[in-house]
Amino acid sequence: MRIVRVSVPDLDHPVFGILSGDQVNLLRGHPYGELDPSGITVELDKVKLLSPVLPSKVVCVGKNYADHAAEMGGEVPVEPVIFIKPSTTVIGDEATIVLPPQSKNVHHEVELAIVISHLCKDVAVERASEVILGYTIANDVTARDLQHSDGQWTRAKSFDTFCPLGPWIETELDPTNLNLSCEVNDVVRQSGNTHDLVRSSHEMVAFISSVMTLLPGDVILTGTPAGVGPIVAGDTVTCTIEGIGTLSNSVAAR
Amino acid sequence: MRIVRVSVPDLDHPVFGILSGDQVNLLRGHPYGELDPSGITVELDKVKLLSPVLPSKVVCVGKNYADHAAEMGGEVPVEPVIFIKPSTTVIGDEATIVLPPQSKNVHHEVELAIVISHLCKDVAVERASEVILGYTIANDVTARDLQHSDGQWTRAKSFDTFCPLGPWIETELDPTNLNLSCEVNDVVRQSGNTHDLVRSSHEMVAFISSVMTLLPGDVILTGTPAGVGPIVAGDTVTCTIEGIGTLSNSVAAR
Repeated sequence: MRIVRVSVPDLDHPVFGILSGDQVNLLRGHPYGELDPSGITVELDKVKLLSPVLPSKVVCVGKNYADHAAEMGGEVPVEPVIFIKPSTTVIGDEATIVLPPQSKNVHHEVELAIVISHLCKDVAVERASEVILGYTIANDVTARDLQHSDGQWTRAKSFDTFCPLGPWIETELDPTNLNLSCEVNDVVRQSGNTHDLVRSSHEMVAFISSVMTLLPGDVILTGTPAGVGPIVAGDTVTCTIEGIGTLSNSVAAR
Repeated sequence: MRIVRVSVPDLDHPVFGILSGDQVNLLRGHPYGELDPSGITVELDKVKLLSPVLPSKVVCVGKNYADHAAEMGGEVPVEPVIFIKPSTTVIGDEATIVLPPQSKNVHHEVELAIVISHLCKDVAVERASEVILGYTIANDVTARDLQHSDGQWTRAKSFDTFCPLGPWIETELDPTNLNLSCEVNDVVRQSGNTHDLVRSSHEMVAFISSVMTLLPGDVILTGTPAGVGPIVAGDTVTCTIEGIGTLSNSVAAR
Protein backbone atom coordinates (compact mmCIF):
# COMPACT_ATOMS: atom_id res chain seq x y z
CA MET A 1 0.00 0.00 0.00
CA ARG A 2 1.15 3.51 -0.77
CA ILE A 3 0.43 6.28 1.75
CA VAL A 4 0.61 9.85 0.55
CA ARG A 5 0.14 13.23 2.18
CA VAL A 6 -1.46 15.70 -0.16
CA SER A 7 -2.74 19.21 -0.53
CA VAL A 8 -6.27 19.08 -1.99
CA PRO A 9 -7.74 22.19 -3.68
CA ASP A 10 -10.89 22.59 -1.56
CA LEU A 11 -9.36 21.67 1.80
CA ASP A 12 -7.52 24.16 3.99
CA HIS A 13 -5.11 21.61 5.48
CA PRO A 14 -3.01 18.70 4.18
CA VAL A 15 -4.51 15.21 4.43
CA PHE A 16 -3.15 11.70 4.31
CA GLY A 17 -4.45 9.27 1.71
CA ILE A 18 -4.04 5.82 0.20
CA LEU A 19 -2.83 5.89 -3.41
CA SER A 20 -4.26 3.18 -5.71
CA GLY A 21 -3.40 3.63 -9.36
CA ASP A 22 -4.16 7.29 -10.02
CA GLN A 23 -6.77 7.61 -7.24
CA VAL A 24 -6.17 8.94 -3.72
CA ASN A 25 -8.61 7.66 -1.08
CA LEU A 26 -8.42 10.35 1.61
CA LEU A 27 -7.86 9.18 5.19
CA ARG A 28 -9.60 10.48 8.26
CA GLY A 29 -6.77 11.43 10.64
CA HIS A 30 -3.26 10.08 10.55
CA PRO A 31 -1.84 6.78 9.27
CA TYR A 32 -0.22 5.65 12.56
CA GLY A 33 -2.44 2.84 13.72
CA GLU A 34 -5.75 1.64 12.27
CA LEU A 35 -6.35 3.37 8.92
CA ASP A 36 -9.71 5.09 8.50
CA PRO A 37 -10.35 5.73 4.77
CA SER A 38 -13.08 8.32 4.17
CA GLY A 39 -14.16 6.82 0.85
CA ILE A 40 -13.67 10.24 -0.73
CA THR A 41 -11.31 9.81 -3.66
CA VAL A 42 -9.43 12.43 -5.63
CA GLU A 43 -7.40 11.97 -8.80
CA LEU A 44 -3.66 12.11 -8.22
CA ASP A 45 -3.16 14.81 -10.85
CA LYS A 46 -5.66 17.06 -9.01
CA VAL A 47 -3.61 17.12 -5.79
CA LYS A 48 -0.13 18.22 -4.79
CA LEU A 49 2.08 15.59 -3.17
CA LEU A 50 3.67 16.79 0.07
CA SER A 51 6.36 15.02 2.08
CA PRO A 52 4.54 11.83 3.16
CA VAL A 53 5.29 12.53 6.83
CA LEU A 54 6.05 15.47 9.11
CA PRO A 55 8.65 13.87 11.38
CA SER A 56 9.48 15.21 14.83
CA LYS A 57 13.04 14.21 13.97
CA VAL A 58 15.05 12.63 11.17
CA VAL A 59 17.78 10.41 12.59
CA CYS A 60 20.54 9.46 10.17
CA VAL A 61 23.33 6.90 10.06
CA GLY A 62 26.73 7.89 8.72
CA LYS A 63 28.98 5.65 6.62
CA ASN A 64 26.62 2.68 6.46
CA TYR A 65 27.77 1.49 3.03
CA ALA A 66 31.44 0.44 2.90
CA ASP A 67 31.99 1.98 -0.55
CA HIS A 68 30.78 5.40 0.64
CA ALA A 69 32.85 5.19 3.84
CA ALA A 70 35.87 4.56 1.62
CA GLU A 71 35.18 7.50 -0.70
CA MET A 72 34.86 9.75 2.39
CA GLY A 73 38.36 8.66 3.37
CA GLY A 74 37.40 6.50 6.29
CA GLU A 75 36.32 3.08 7.40
CA VAL A 76 32.97 1.86 8.60
CA PRO A 77 32.80 2.84 12.30
CA VAL A 78 32.82 0.09 14.96
CA GLU A 79 29.49 1.37 16.30
CA PRO A 80 26.98 3.20 14.10
CA VAL A 81 27.50 6.97 14.07
CA ILE A 82 24.25 8.93 14.10
CA PHE A 83 23.24 12.52 13.51
CA ILE A 84 19.95 14.41 13.40
CA LYS A 85 18.37 16.56 10.70
CA PRO A 86 15.71 18.93 12.09
CA SER A 87 12.10 18.73 10.91
CA THR A 88 12.57 22.05 9.11
CA THR A 89 14.80 20.35 6.49
CA VAL A 90 11.93 18.26 5.11
CA ILE A 91 10.39 18.96 1.69
CA GLY A 92 8.34 16.78 -0.63
CA ASP A 93 8.60 15.43 -4.14
CA GLU A 94 9.06 18.13 -6.80
CA ALA A 95 9.83 20.82 -4.22
CA THR A 96 13.02 22.82 -4.67
CA ILE A 97 16.32 22.26 -2.87
CA VAL A 98 17.65 25.75 -2.07
CA LEU A 99 21.44 26.15 -1.96
CA PRO A 100 22.54 28.31 0.98
CA PRO A 101 25.12 31.06 0.46
CA GLN A 102 27.33 29.56 3.21
CA SER A 103 28.32 26.55 1.07
CA LYS A 104 30.14 26.19 -2.24
CA ASN A 105 29.82 22.40 -2.40
CA VAL A 106 26.38 20.89 -1.76
CA HIS A 107 26.06 17.13 -2.40
CA HIS A 108 23.20 14.68 -3.06
CA GLU A 109 22.92 11.43 -1.04
CA VAL A 110 20.15 8.96 -1.92
CA GLU A 111 18.98 6.90 1.06
CA LEU A 112 16.33 4.38 2.01
CA ALA A 113 14.16 6.03 4.69
CA ILE A 114 12.27 4.15 7.41
CA VAL A 115 9.01 5.68 8.67
CA ILE A 116 8.15 4.83 12.29
CA SER A 117 4.54 3.96 13.15
CA HIS A 118 4.53 3.71 16.95
CA LEU A 119 6.00 5.47 19.94
CA CYS A 120 8.78 3.08 20.90
CA LYS A 121 11.97 2.65 22.93
CA ASP A 122 14.44 -0.26 23.12
CA VAL A 123 12.99 -2.18 20.20
CA ALA A 124 14.57 -5.60 19.65
CA VAL A 125 15.91 -6.20 16.12
CA GLU A 126 13.51 -9.09 15.61
CA ARG A 127 10.55 -6.89 16.52
CA ALA A 128 11.57 -3.80 14.50
CA SER A 129 9.00 -4.49 11.79
CA GLU A 130 6.23 -3.96 14.38
CA VAL A 131 7.14 -0.26 14.71
CA ILE A 132 7.77 0.43 11.00
CA LEU A 133 4.93 1.93 8.97
CA GLY A 134 6.88 1.58 5.74
CA TYR A 135 9.66 2.99 3.61
CA THR A 136 10.17 6.06 1.48
CA ILE A 137 13.02 7.71 -0.43
CA ALA A 138 15.24 10.41 1.05
CA ASN A 139 17.93 12.70 -0.26
CA ASP A 140 20.28 13.56 2.62
CA VAL A 141 21.46 16.83 1.07
CA THR A 142 24.80 17.84 2.59
CA ALA A 143 27.03 20.92 2.47
CA ARG A 144 30.23 18.89 2.11
CA ASP A 145 32.57 21.82 2.68
CA LEU A 146 30.90 22.74 5.99
CA GLN A 147 30.78 19.07 7.01
CA HIS A 148 34.56 18.97 6.76
CA SER A 149 35.34 22.40 8.23
CA ASP A 150 32.96 21.99 11.20
CA GLY A 151 33.97 18.43 12.05
CA GLN A 152 30.51 17.99 13.51
CA TRP A 153 28.00 17.21 10.74
CA THR A 154 24.91 18.93 12.06
CA ARG A 155 25.16 22.35 10.38
CA ALA A 156 26.08 20.82 6.99
CA LYS A 157 22.98 18.61 7.10
CA SER A 158 20.46 21.04 8.64
CA PHE A 159 19.74 23.77 6.10
CA ASP A 160 16.08 24.27 5.20
CA THR A 161 15.08 22.05 2.19
CA PHE A 162 18.01 19.64 2.81
CA CYS A 163 15.76 16.59 3.35
CA PRO A 164 13.55 15.77 0.37
CA LEU A 165 11.28 12.84 1.32
CA GLY A 166 8.79 10.99 -0.86
CA PRO A 167 6.95 10.52 -3.03
CA TRP A 168 5.01 8.17 -0.74
CA ILE A 169 5.38 5.54 1.97
CA GLU A 170 5.37 1.97 0.68
CA THR A 171 4.06 -0.22 3.49
CA GLU A 172 4.70 -3.64 1.96
CA LEU A 173 8.36 -3.87 1.18
CA ASP A 174 11.26 -6.12 2.07
CA PRO A 175 14.05 -3.56 2.64
CA THR A 176 16.94 -6.00 2.42
CA ASN A 177 17.58 -6.22 -1.34
CA LEU A 178 16.57 -3.05 -3.14
CA ASN A 179 18.44 -1.25 -5.90
CA LEU A 180 18.80 2.47 -5.23
CA SER A 181 20.24 5.17 -7.43
CA CYS A 182 20.61 8.90 -7.84
CA GLU A 183 20.68 10.73 -11.14
CA VAL A 184 21.53 14.37 -11.67
CA ASN A 185 20.15 15.70 -14.98
CA ASP A 186 19.68 12.10 -16.16
CA VAL A 187 23.30 11.14 -15.47
CA VAL A 188 23.64 8.29 -12.98
CA ARG A 189 25.79 9.40 -10.04
CA GLN A 190 25.01 6.82 -7.36
CA SER A 191 23.98 3.21 -7.77
CA GLY A 192 23.81 0.66 -4.98
CA ASN A 193 21.73 -1.99 -3.30
CA THR A 194 20.47 -2.13 0.25
CA HIS A 195 21.95 -5.61 0.69
CA ASP A 196 25.27 -3.73 1.04
CA LEU A 197 24.09 -1.85 4.13
CA VAL A 198 26.60 -2.48 6.93
CA ARG A 199 23.75 -2.37 9.45
CA SER A 200 20.30 -3.34 8.24
CA SER A 201 17.20 -1.18 8.56
CA HIS A 202 15.95 -3.31 11.44
CA GLU A 203 19.31 -3.11 13.21
CA MET A 204 19.21 0.68 12.96
CA VAL A 205 15.72 0.86 14.49
CA ALA A 206 17.04 -1.22 17.40
CA PHE A 207 20.21 0.84 17.78
CA ILE A 208 18.58 4.28 17.62
CA SER A 209 15.65 3.29 19.85
CA SER A 210 18.19 2.11 22.45
CA VAL A 211 19.21 5.77 22.71
CA MET A 212 16.02 7.79 22.18
CA THR A 213 12.28 7.34 22.10
CA LEU A 214 10.95 7.29 18.54
CA LEU A 215 7.59 8.90 17.79
CA PRO A 216 5.02 8.06 15.10
CA GLY A 217 6.16 9.68 11.86
CA ASP A 218 9.82 9.86 12.86
CA VAL A 219 12.17 9.00 10.02
CA ILE A 220 15.44 7.06 9.99
CA LEU A 221 17.82 7.50 7.05
CA THR A 222 19.87 4.36 6.56
CA GLY A 223 22.95 5.74 4.78
CA THR A 224 24.09 6.37 1.22
CA PRO A 225 26.13 4.31 -1.26
CA ALA A 226 29.21 5.64 -3.09
CA GLY A 227 29.02 8.28 -5.78
CA VAL A 228 28.00 11.37 -3.85
CA GLY A 229 28.75 14.58 -5.68
CA PRO A 230 27.82 18.21 -6.19
CA ILE A 231 24.51 19.69 -7.24
CA VAL A 232 24.22 23.23 -8.58
CA ALA A 233 21.44 25.65 -9.38
CA GLY A 234 19.40 24.47 -12.34
CA ASP A 235 20.03 20.77 -11.71
CA THR A 236 17.31 18.18 -11.26
CA VAL A 237 18.12 15.41 -8.76
CA THR A 238 16.23 12.16 -9.12
CA CYS A 239 16.45 9.45 -6.48
CA THR A 240 15.01 6.04 -7.26
CA ILE A 241 14.50 3.01 -5.03
CA GLU A 242 13.21 -0.30 -6.34
CA GLY A 243 9.72 -1.05 -5.07
CA ILE A 244 9.04 2.52 -3.99
CA GLY A 245 9.40 4.89 -6.93
CA THR A 246 11.15 8.14 -7.73
CA LEU A 247 11.79 11.34 -5.76
CA SER A 248 12.64 14.29 -7.96
CA ASN A 249 13.73 17.76 -6.89
CA SER A 250 15.02 20.81 -8.68
CA VAL A 251 17.92 22.82 -7.31
CA ALA A 252 18.00 26.60 -7.04
CA ALA A 253 20.31 29.24 -5.64
CA ARG A 254 18.98 31.20 -2.70
CA MET B 1 7.55 37.79 34.00
CA ARG B 2 7.91 34.07 34.66
CA ILE B 3 6.14 31.63 32.33
CA VAL B 4 5.60 28.10 33.56
CA ARG B 5 4.05 24.97 32.09
CA VAL B 6 2.24 22.94 34.69
CA SER B 7 0.20 19.86 35.32
CA VAL B 8 -2.93 20.83 37.30
CA PRO B 9 -4.85 18.16 39.26
CA ASP B 10 -8.28 18.62 37.64
CA LEU B 11 -7.10 19.19 34.07
CA ASP B 12 -6.31 16.36 31.67
CA HIS B 13 -3.59 18.26 29.79
CA PRO B 14 -0.66 20.52 30.71
CA VAL B 15 -1.26 24.28 30.61
CA PHE B 16 0.96 27.33 30.47
CA GLY B 17 0.71 29.96 33.19
CA ILE B 18 2.22 33.16 34.56
CA LEU B 19 3.89 32.71 37.93
CA SER B 20 3.59 35.64 40.35
CA GLY B 21 4.85 34.92 43.85
CA ASP B 22 3.30 31.56 44.68
CA GLN B 23 0.30 31.95 42.36
CA VAL B 24 0.01 30.58 38.80
CA ASN B 25 -2.42 32.48 36.55
CA LEU B 26 -3.33 29.89 33.91
CA LEU B 27 -3.05 30.97 30.27
CA ARG B 28 -5.53 30.21 27.54
CA GLY B 29 -3.44 28.63 24.77
CA HIS B 30 0.28 29.07 24.29
CA PRO B 31 2.66 31.88 25.28
CA TYR B 32 3.99 32.61 21.76
CA GLY B 33 2.41 35.94 20.90
CA GLU B 34 -0.25 37.87 22.82
CA LEU B 35 -0.73 36.28 26.24
CA ASP B 36 -4.32 35.45 27.22
CA PRO B 37 -4.52 34.92 31.02
CA SER B 38 -7.66 33.08 32.08
CA GLY B 39 -7.81 34.75 35.49
CA ILE B 40 -7.96 31.27 37.03
CA THR B 41 -5.16 31.04 39.56
CA VAL B 42 -3.71 27.99 41.27
CA GLU B 43 -1.18 27.85 44.05
CA LEU B 44 2.29 26.79 42.92
CA ASP B 45 2.49 24.00 45.48
CA LYS B 46 -0.75 22.50 44.11
CA VAL B 47 0.69 21.99 40.61
CA LYS B 48 3.60 20.07 39.11
CA LEU B 49 6.12 22.09 37.12
CA LEU B 50 6.84 20.60 33.70
CA SER B 51 9.55 21.68 31.26
CA PRO B 52 8.44 25.24 30.42
CA VAL B 53 8.40 24.43 26.68
CA LEU B 54 8.02 21.46 24.38
CA PRO B 55 10.57 22.40 21.70
CA SER B 56 10.49 20.96 18.19
CA LYS B 57 14.28 21.01 18.48
CA VAL B 58 17.03 21.98 20.89
CA VAL B 59 19.98 23.48 19.02
CA CYS B 60 23.23 23.65 20.96
CA VAL B 61 26.55 25.42 20.57
CA GLY B 62 29.77 23.58 21.40
CA LYS B 63 32.80 25.13 23.07
CA ASN B 64 31.31 28.61 23.55
CA TYR B 65 33.25 29.40 26.74
CA ALA B 66 37.05 29.50 26.26
CA ASP B 67 37.72 27.78 29.61
CA HIS B 68 35.50 24.81 28.70
CA ALA B 69 37.03 24.55 25.21
CA ALA B 70 40.44 24.36 26.92
CA GLU B 71 39.38 21.64 29.37
CA MET B 72 38.03 19.62 26.42
CA GLY B 73 41.51 19.82 24.89
CA GLY B 74 40.67 22.19 22.08
CA GLU B 75 40.33 25.80 21.11
CA VAL B 76 37.24 27.84 20.42
CA PRO B 77 36.28 27.00 16.83
CA VAL B 78 36.55 29.70 14.14
CA GLU B 79 32.85 29.33 13.36
CA PRO B 80 30.33 28.15 15.96
CA VAL B 81 29.89 24.37 15.98
CA ILE B 82 26.29 23.31 16.49
CA PHE B 83 24.50 20.06 17.30
CA ILE B 84 20.91 19.07 17.97
CA LYS B 85 19.28 17.33 20.92
CA PRO B 86 15.93 15.74 20.01
CA SER B 87 12.70 16.82 21.74
CA THR B 88 12.61 13.46 23.50
CA THR B 89 15.57 14.49 25.71
CA VAL B 90 13.55 17.19 27.47
CA ILE B 91 12.42 16.83 31.10
CA GLY B 92 11.40 19.45 33.66
CA ASP B 93 12.55 20.59 37.08
CA GLU B 94 12.70 17.81 39.67
CA ALA B 95 12.36 15.07 37.06
CA THR B 96 14.97 12.32 37.05
CA ILE B 97 17.99 12.06 34.74
CA VAL B 98 18.26 8.38 33.82
CA LEU B 99 21.76 7.03 33.13
CA PRO B 100 21.80 4.72 30.10
CA PRO B 101 23.66 1.40 30.28
CA GLN B 102 25.71 2.36 27.19
CA SER B 103 27.77 4.96 29.08
CA LYS B 104 30.09 4.78 32.06
CA ASN B 105 30.79 8.53 32.20
CA VAL B 106 27.79 10.87 32.06
CA HIS B 107 28.50 14.59 32.70
CA HIS B 108 26.51 17.67 33.73
CA GLU B 109 26.75 20.91 31.71
CA VAL B 110 24.86 23.98 32.97
CA GLU B 111 23.81 26.33 30.15
CA LEU B 112 21.76 29.47 29.59
CA ALA B 113 18.86 28.46 27.29
CA ILE B 114 17.10 30.80 24.87
CA VAL B 115 13.39 30.16 24.15
CA ILE B 116 12.23 31.29 20.70
CA SER B 117 8.86 33.06 20.38
CA HIS B 118 8.33 33.38 16.64
CA LEU B 119 8.84 31.36 13.49
CA CYS B 120 11.92 33.00 12.05
CA LYS B 121 14.78 32.66 9.57
CA ASP B 122 17.84 34.84 8.92
CA VAL B 123 17.39 37.00 11.99
CA ALA B 124 19.86 39.90 12.21
CA VAL B 125 21.84 40.08 15.47
CA GLU B 126 20.36 43.47 16.30
CA ARG B 127 16.82 42.11 15.90
CA ALA B 128 17.33 38.83 17.81
CA SER B 129 15.47 40.09 20.88
CA GLU B 130 12.30 40.32 18.75
CA VAL B 131 12.18 36.51 18.36
CA ILE B 132 13.18 35.61 21.94
CA LEU B 133 10.41 34.84 24.41
CA GLY B 134 12.85 34.61 27.30
CA TYR B 135 15.49 32.51 29.00
CA THR B 136 15.54 29.38 31.09
CA ILE B 137 18.13 27.02 32.56
CA ALA B 138 19.35 23.87 30.81
CA ASN B 139 21.53 20.95 31.73
CA ASP B 140 23.11 19.58 28.53
CA VAL B 141 23.65 16.10 29.94
CA THR B 142 26.36 14.31 27.94
CA ALA B 143 27.73 10.77 27.79
CA ARG B 144 31.34 11.94 27.61
CA ASP B 145 32.77 8.52 26.74
CA LEU B 146 30.43 8.12 23.76
CA GLN B 147 31.06 11.71 22.67
CA HIS B 148 34.75 10.85 22.34
CA SER B 149 34.40 7.37 20.84
CA ASP B 150 31.77 8.41 18.27
CA GLY B 151 33.51 11.61 17.19
CA GLN B 152 30.07 12.96 16.28
CA TRP B 153 28.33 14.27 19.41
CA THR B 154 24.72 13.41 18.63
CA ARG B 155 24.35 10.02 20.31
CA ALA B 156 26.14 11.19 23.47
CA LYS B 157 23.73 14.13 23.79
CA SER B 158 20.46 12.43 22.73
CA PHE B 159 19.48 9.92 25.40
CA ASP B 160 16.00 10.35 26.87
CA THR B 161 16.06 12.68 29.94
CA PHE B 162 19.37 14.30 28.83
CA CYS B 163 17.93 17.82 28.59
CA PRO B 164 16.48 19.09 31.85
CA LEU B 165 14.90 22.54 31.21
CA GLY B 166 13.33 24.92 33.68
CA PRO B 167 12.03 25.79 36.13
CA TRP B 168 10.38 28.62 34.12
CA ILE B 169 11.00 31.10 31.33
CA GLU B 170 12.09 34.53 32.54
CA THR B 171 10.96 37.02 29.91
CA GLU B 172 12.67 40.15 31.26
CA LEU B 173 16.36 39.44 31.47
CA ASP B 174 19.56 40.90 30.07
CA PRO B 175 21.47 37.72 29.14
CA THR B 176 24.90 39.36 28.87
CA ASN B 177 26.16 39.34 32.47
CA LEU B 178 24.66 36.48 34.47
CA ASN B 179 26.43 34.21 36.93
CA LEU B 180 25.72 30.55 36.32
CA SER B 181 26.75 27.52 38.32
CA CYS B 182 26.23 23.81 38.74
CA GLU B 183 26.34 21.96 42.02
CA VAL B 184 26.33 18.19 42.50
CA ASN B 185 25.17 17.20 45.99
CA ASP B 186 25.82 20.78 47.16
CA VAL B 187 29.43 20.82 45.91
CA VAL B 188 30.08 23.54 43.33
CA ARG B 189 31.39 21.99 40.12
CA GLN B 190 30.87 24.73 37.53
CA SER B 191 30.88 28.47 38.04
CA GLY B 192 30.93 31.03 35.25
CA ASN B 193 29.35 34.16 33.86
CA THR B 194 27.63 34.68 30.53
CA HIS B 195 29.87 37.70 29.80
CA ASP B 196 32.49 35.05 28.99
CA LEU B 197 30.40 33.58 26.16
CA VAL B 198 32.52 33.60 23.00
CA ARG B 199 29.38 34.28 20.95
CA SER B 200 26.52 36.06 22.64
CA SER B 201 22.97 34.75 22.85
CA HIS B 202 21.87 37.18 20.15
CA GLU B 203 24.75 36.17 17.88
CA MET B 204 23.73 32.51 18.23
CA VAL B 205 20.11 33.26 17.27
CA ALA B 206 21.45 35.00 14.15
CA PHE B 207 23.91 32.20 13.32
CA ILE B 208 21.50 29.30 13.81
CA SER B 209 18.62 31.04 12.04
CA SER B 210 20.92 31.59 9.05
CA VAL B 211 20.93 27.78 8.71
CA MET B 212 17.47 26.63 9.77
CA THR B 213 14.02 28.01 10.42
CA LEU B 214 13.31 28.33 14.14
CA LEU B 215 9.82 27.60 15.43
CA PRO B 216 7.99 29.00 18.47
CA GLY B 217 9.18 27.09 21.53
CA ASP B 218 12.47 26.03 19.97
CA VAL B 219 15.37 26.20 22.40
CA ILE B 220 18.99 27.24 21.87
CA LEU B 221 21.61 26.16 24.42
CA THR B 222 24.44 28.67 24.52
CA GLY B 223 27.30 26.53 25.83
CA THR B 224 28.78 25.56 29.17
CA PRO B 225 31.64 26.98 31.27
CA ALA B 226 34.53 24.88 32.64
CA GLY B 227 34.10 22.33 35.39
CA VAL B 228 32.04 19.63 33.69
CA GLY B 229 32.24 16.30 35.46
CA PRO B 230 30.53 13.01 36.16
CA ILE B 231 27.14 12.39 37.76
CA VAL B 232 26.18 9.02 39.18
CA ALA B 233 23.04 7.35 40.47
CA GLY B 234 21.84 8.95 43.68
CA ASP B 235 23.28 12.39 42.88
CA THR B 236 21.27 15.58 42.82
CA VAL B 237 22.35 18.12 40.17
CA THR B 238 21.42 21.73 40.76
CA CYS B 239 21.92 24.34 38.05
CA THR B 240 21.51 28.01 38.99
CA ILE B 241 21.45 31.11 36.79
CA GLU B 242 21.26 34.61 38.22
CA GLY B 243 17.93 36.25 37.49
CA ILE B 244 16.20 32.98 36.60
CA GLY B 245 16.41 30.53 39.49
CA THR B 246 17.38 26.94 40.09
CA LEU B 247 16.87 23.73 38.10
CA SER B 248 17.29 20.60 40.20
CA ASN B 249 17.28 16.99 39.03
CA SER B 250 18.01 13.68 40.66
CA VAL B 251 20.07 11.02 38.90
CA ALA B 252 19.15 7.34 38.68
CA ALA B 253 20.49 4.25 37.00
CA ARG B 254 18.27 2.76 34.32
